[in-house]
Formats: sequence, structure tokens, C-alpha cells
Amino acid sequence: MTESDQTSPKQGYSRRALLGAFGAGAVVVAGAGAAGAAIITREQSPDPASLTYPFYGPTQQGVTTPMQDTLHFASLDMTTDSREALIAMLKSWTLAAAAMTQGQPVGRFGTEGIYDAPPSDTGEALGLPPSGLTITFGFGPTLFRTADGIDRFGLASQQPATLHKLPRFPRDTLNPAISNGDLCIQACANNPQVAVHAVRNLVRLAFGTATVRWSQNGFGKSSLTTTDEATPRNLMGFKDGTNNIKGDDSAELEAQVWVQPQDNPKWMDDGTYMAVRKVRMTIETWDRTSLREQELVFGRTKLEGAPMSGGNEFTDPDFKAVGREGLPLIAVDSHVAIAHPDNNDGARVLRRGYNYTDSSDALGRLDAGLFYLAFARNLQTQFIPMQMRLSQNDRMNEYVRYIGDATFAIPPGVPNDNGYIGEPLFTATA
Amino acid sequence: MTESDQTSPKQGYSRRALLGAFGAGAVVVAGAGAAGAAIITREQSPDPASLTYPFYGPTQQGVTTPMQDTLHFASLDMTTDSREALIAMLKSWTLAAAAMTQGQPVGRFGTEGIYDAPPSDTGEALGLPPSGLTITFGFGPTLFRTADGIDRFGLASQQPATLHKLPRFPRDTLNPAISNGDLCIQACANNPQVAVHAVRNLVRLAFGTATVRWSQNGFGKSSLTTTDEATPRNLMGFKDGTNNIKGDDSAELEAQVWVQPQDNPKWMDDGTYMAVRKVRMTIETWDRTSLREQELVFGRTKLEGAPMSGGNEFTDPDFKAVGREGLPLIAVDSHVAIAHPDNNDGARVLRRGYNYTDSSDALGRLDAGLFYLAFARNLQTQFIPMQMRLSQNDRMNEYVRYIGDATFAIPPGVPNDNGYIGEPLFTATA
Repeated sequence: MTESDQTSPKQGYSRRALLGAFGAGAVVVAGAGAAGAAIITREQSPDPASLTYPFYGPTQQGVTTPMQDTLHFASLDMTTDSREALIAMLKSWTLAAAAMTQGQPVGRFGTEGIYDAPPSDTGEALGLPPSGLTITFGFGPTLFRTADGIDRFGLASQQPATLHKLPRFPRDTLNPAISNGDLCIQACANNPQVAVHAVRNLVRLAFGTATVRWSQNGFGKSSLTTTDEATPRNLMGFKDGTNNIKGDDSAELEAQVWVQPQDNPKWMDDGTYMAVRKVRMTIETWDRTSLREQELVFGRTKLEGAPMSGGNEFTDPDFKAVGREGLPLIAVDSHVAIAHPDNNDGARVLRRGYNYTDSSDALGRLDAGLFYLAFARNLQTQFIPMQMRLSQNDRMNEYVRYIGDATFAIPPGVPNDNGYIGEPLFTATA
Repeated sequence: MTESDQTSPKQGYSRRALLGAFGAGAVVVAGAGAAGAAIITREQSPDPASLTYPFYGPTQQGVTTPMQDTLHFASLDMTTDSREALIAMLKSWTLAAAAMTQGQPVGRFGTEGIYDAPPSDTGEALGLPPSGLTITFGFGPTLFRTADGIDRFGLASQQPATLHKLPRFPRDTLNPAISNGDLCIQACANNPQVAVHAVRNLVRLAFGTATVRWSQNGFGKSSLTTTDEATPRNLMGFKDGTNNIKGDDSAELEAQVWVQPQDNPKWMDDGTYMAVRKVRMTIETWDRTSLREQELVFGRTKLEGAPMSGGNEFTDPDFKAVGREGLPLIAVDSHVAIAHPDNNDGARVLRRGYNYTDSSDALGRLDAGLFYLAFARNLQTQFIPMQMRLSQNDRMNEYVRYIGDATFAIPPGVPNDNGYIGEPLFTATA
């Protein structure tokens, strides 16, 4: 019913009023400054370096935005119980994110008379173009209520009923040091230095209020979020996210991603929820597996990504098709069979994961896999049942280990530069 | 006197005959296949995704090639003492690198009848453009002779006199697990997935012969290697590599980078040597330091990169200029003063380092810094004395820790597809 945030060329409008104005074909705003902003269509293949997305809008950026090339993600824990300090940090984050996403430094750099103070911006992105930077903020369950049930910031009454730590799934081998967190920052950009700079400067602004719990670099976007690109491949070498919700599929975004007016709590209207799962692949084992087994695991061909029931990449899988000896062409425990919405009551999520390599482990094995990020209107009904089925039955489990996870509420966007991220939550609990 | 490798549009020519043919303005070959190859000049700003550099040539690629956006580097140790296995691996690496750098998979993918074998290529770069991929191979001192003096592969007689592990420098806090190695692979590309894919597939070919000792991702090239780009910034936020040797400065490349016919051993003619230093920055401390102190440390202004003695970024520093109270405008212990060739008997190196972030450490601090890579004709006279002076006197030492290092001989290129990397070494020791 409505259009996604990145179509928004100016501030202070209603998300739901936007569709008529621009239509689904307009996907990005290009140009480094507001004055130079122009709507261009996807056919024009904009320069990834000069892409600029507006920060202010009804929804946060970085959800339906076409996936950028790289990710820097940080999970933070609060180091104070001061609600005022939390609000002050969110205000400073809002201003800094609004500047950095437009290619500007944090604060004013190099102004006379500041030589005795540290520069307000760390500087490594000075001179670099905006590179399509988006910054997305999230609130973890523990921001509302600690594991001990303590309401540190007076927010417990407004904790969304669907926002909890993920349940323990079968086979999970989670490392608490790379799981969960009070807050998250997702920075995506077409230049990793721009994404790293963004998180670093936000973390710097958090000094004394919050500290990094864990962080993650990602690259090689592992999901298709627009209809005009070739489907990217994960580190198992397969196309991934062929049937993902696209950032311009307004009906599905309303149904599956954005929190709607009839949902609760009200402060989350135009927000969404994020599920994070860090999936290490046992790369060396996979690489010694036959092509037959690999295609059996995915339920798709490796080269084309076509379902094993036939057709091309975009042909619907036919789970009833059988071959020799009456065996299903798509194995019932294949990844596509378990994850497909047809086998999950139609539930879908918007995937936005990235591949990762964290160097090598002590045995010389590539420490690599998928940093799975997904957005859904309701994690309890959309994500968790599907992940439970995957963890129980997915033939792929032999080749992956789930080593970290987290959930976050992604509050609505900041409508204009008078507001700050999460303001409706603090108003609701004032 | 000669031109660098990446100007080479075809195989089997002499490096020293090339200058006249193309001149210094032609820097890259674009187009995914040999048939489509065309010389374009740097003014045309080629698409970083479609850039393709020839693999075969008198020198290896990835030394003077304009720096790509990302790095994946691996150091490997041999797991066998078989000279034949080493040669077989180098032959398979050569063929695979020649294919991958042209945007082709390793071996033939998806051929009929191979379903019971693992695919020859892991697949995650299928469909991706060449992305400017270069692959550079190196031989560590321990390939010639182990720490115990054992000549495993019959190569000891040809160990270059200048190739040894780096000496211990003052303040070094090296981790042996991320230092040294028998062999190295440096993959650079404008898409990290392409670089990671390259190293992964080469490591896979090494199975049973060599295994990864350590590896490193890099981004945000930290050195200027061409004259047409803005100088990149390191993670201290300063422009870095302003005075680097440029990839088209033939005279300096001959004098400082490429091993010359009068040098020894002969098999290294048209080769070079690589020094690696992993430099962790104490980011949080640096970020709380005044702009005055930061500029004092570098000896340059942060915004413009101009020497503190005045002028603009490209003005030569005047180490004799004094200001109030007769103090030098450029501090004698500043980084530029210690590292400048004027203060190092004219010695220079070709820097090709990358910034890195390895997530966060247990205290929430950004684990980040500079993965310093440099090439020199003679590390003993060009790199080591300069590093010794830096380790002893550089004001920057307060904000960095050297945590890993390595050296490698970079053998000459493979002239054509009848050869393999390092062949002259094995011929000389046959």
C-alpha cells in the first residue's frame, strides 16, 4: 500500500502518502546534497559511490534500501542506567547519522580554535563520497528489561510483546560474546571505509553511555533486494535470496515487514523487527562435497539456481514433482523445501544478510559464512517457526553452525531534524 | 627505464621493450576477455568492476597495479617436504590465477558427468565481473631453509641474500601466529567477494601440500599508487602515502622496486621483495587526542595533508623551517620527518597497504589499524633502516602496536601459459 523510505526526496511527509507521488519505479535519490537531489530510476545504474539516501523519513533507511556492497554492524550495551544519558546519546546519534549519510563529517571539522580538542570527526571518510551509506538503529530486548527483569530506563511497559531474545534452536552453538545487545547500529555502504567510519564515530559519541559488545564486517550481499540485479551468491557458491521480498514490493512490505497501525505497541508504527543469526559454514567440508550433494542440499542447481523440479532460477519450485522411483525431485529436507513460504503458511521475511570472513582459525580453516539479517513485522510468527523447521530438518545443517544471534526492534524513522531516533518510545513512557 | 606489468596487453614480450610501445599514460587493460582487451588511459575512469589485468607478463601483477579497493591476503606453510608437490601446486596456482584474474572460474564448471565430484570452482564468484582482480605470489625465507636450517626443497642455494625474517624492532609485540610463512598469496580486487574467492580456491588447490597459517582482510587502500586519485586516508584519519612511488614512475620502479639484472640471485630478475607489518592502532586513545597532537605526530595537517612547514599536500616538507622560539615547524620525531626519503639516504619503498578492522576486542575496542605492505628491490637497505628509525623515534609509536610481520620474495611474472610461478627458481636449483 505504501512506498519504501528510500524514495523520499524530502522531509516531513507521510509514508502512506508517497506512493502516488513517485510510484514504484523510483528507487534512489542521487547527489551528495539536498540541493542536488534528484529522483533517478533504477535503469540509470547510478554510480555506487555517489548514491545518497535521505536519513529523515517515516521509516528507517537500510531496510528496504537496495543492498549496498558492504556492512559494518555493531551491537552495544549500555554502561549507565541514566535514561537522560540514553536519550542524549540517541539525539547525538541522530544528528551524526543525518550528516554522515549525506557525506558530511560529524560536527564541524577544522574550525579555528579547536586545536586543543580532539577533532569532532575521526576523519578517515573525509573526501570520500557518500557511497550509499545508510545507518539503521535498533533496540534489543534488554534495553526494555534486563535478564533480571530490571527496568533500567523506564521502558518496560512499552516492550513489544513480540520482542524477546530468540529461543534456543536445535543444534545452536551460540557464543554469548557475539550474541544479543542493548542496541545495534547497522551501517551499509558501497565503500567499507565509509561504513566503518560511521560506526566508529557513533561508538565514539556513545563513550560513557554505551560500549561495543560485538561487531561484524560483511561483504558480498547475500540476498536480492531489487528486481534488476543478478542474484548474489553466498559462500557455498549458490545464488541466495532469489525469492526475497523486494524493496519495491509495497504490498509485501506492508504485510510482512512494516509494523502497521493495528499492531502494538503504537510507538513501533512504521518500524520493524530484526533477527540476526551468524552462521559459520564449514567451508572445507563443503568444498569436498560432490556437486550432486550440494544441489540436493539446496534443492536448486548450483550454476543457474533453478529448482531441482525444473525451469529457471525464477520458476516456482514444484515440491510435488517426482522422478525415478517416485522420489521427489526436490528433497523434502532441502533448504528450499524447508524455507519456502509455501511450506511456512506464507510467512516471509525481508533478508538482508552479508557474507563474512573473519580471517582464519587456528587450524588454518577459513572462518567464514553468512551474517544473516532479516526484517519482519512479527518475528514470532514469521521468523521463529521457519528457523525452528530449518534447525530441525534442514539438510544444510551438516555444513553450518549457528554461532551467534540477536533480535532488535527497529523503531520508525525520524520524520525531520527536530526529532531523534526512538523518540516515540520515550514519549510513550514519559 | 621500463614500464610496469599492467600495461601489458599480450603475452610473451619483454618488459624492457614495452615502454616505447605504449608509454606511461596507458595504465589498464579493460574488458573481460583477451578478444575484448583494449588499452584505455586513466582519464577515462574505467568501471572498477570490469577492470581486467593480464596475469602473464614479465613482472607479477599486484605490485604496480593501481590499488584496488579490497585485499584478501593469506600466508601459508608447507605441509610436505616434497619438491614435486610444491612445483605441482605452483603450476596449479598459475593456471587458476590466470583464469580467475580474467573473470573465469577455476577449471570447468558444471560439465556433464561430474556430479559425483566436488565442483572445480567453489562458485561464489560465478557471474561476478573480474573486478580488477590481481593475484601475487611470494616465497618466504622458510621456503628456502627452515628455522632449523633444513633445506626441505633443495632451494637453499638460491635463497636471496637479502631475504630473511625481519629483525626484531624496538617496541615490537609480534604474535607468531600472524607472522611469517612459507608462501603468500595477495589477492586485490574491487569486490571483496572476488578477492576472498581467489584465495579460497588457491588454498583449496593447496590441500595436502600447504595450509593457511594466517590471513587478513583489508579495505580502504591506504596508499596512493597513481597520480590521478585523491590520496586515501588511514584509520587515524590522515592522508597516507602522498609521496609513495607511483605505478607509472618507471625510473623509480627500476631503482627502488624491481630487481635488476646486476642484482642477485638471477632467478629474481624482474621480481621484488615484500615487507608486511600489521600495525594495530589504539583507536580509542587516538580519538581522544587533540588535533594539535595528531598533527604534531604526523607532521602534516589533518584536513589537507600539507606539511606543517606550509604549502599544500604535495609541497615538499621543509624540515629546516622553524617557528616561534626557534622550534622546527615539523617536529623531528614526527612520522613524516622519520620516514621521509630525505632523511633515509633517498631510500623509498612502494607502499601498498590496506586499512583493516578485525571486529572488536573483548573490551569493546575496535580491533583496527593498518596492514602495511611494501615492495622494495632490497629490504635490507630500503625498508629495514627506515623501520628501525620509526620504531626507535616515531612519535606515532604511542598510538600503534606492531603485532605481526613477514617478508616474502616476489618472483618475476610468468611470461606465458607454458610457465609457472617461480619456475626460474626451480630451474636454477634443478
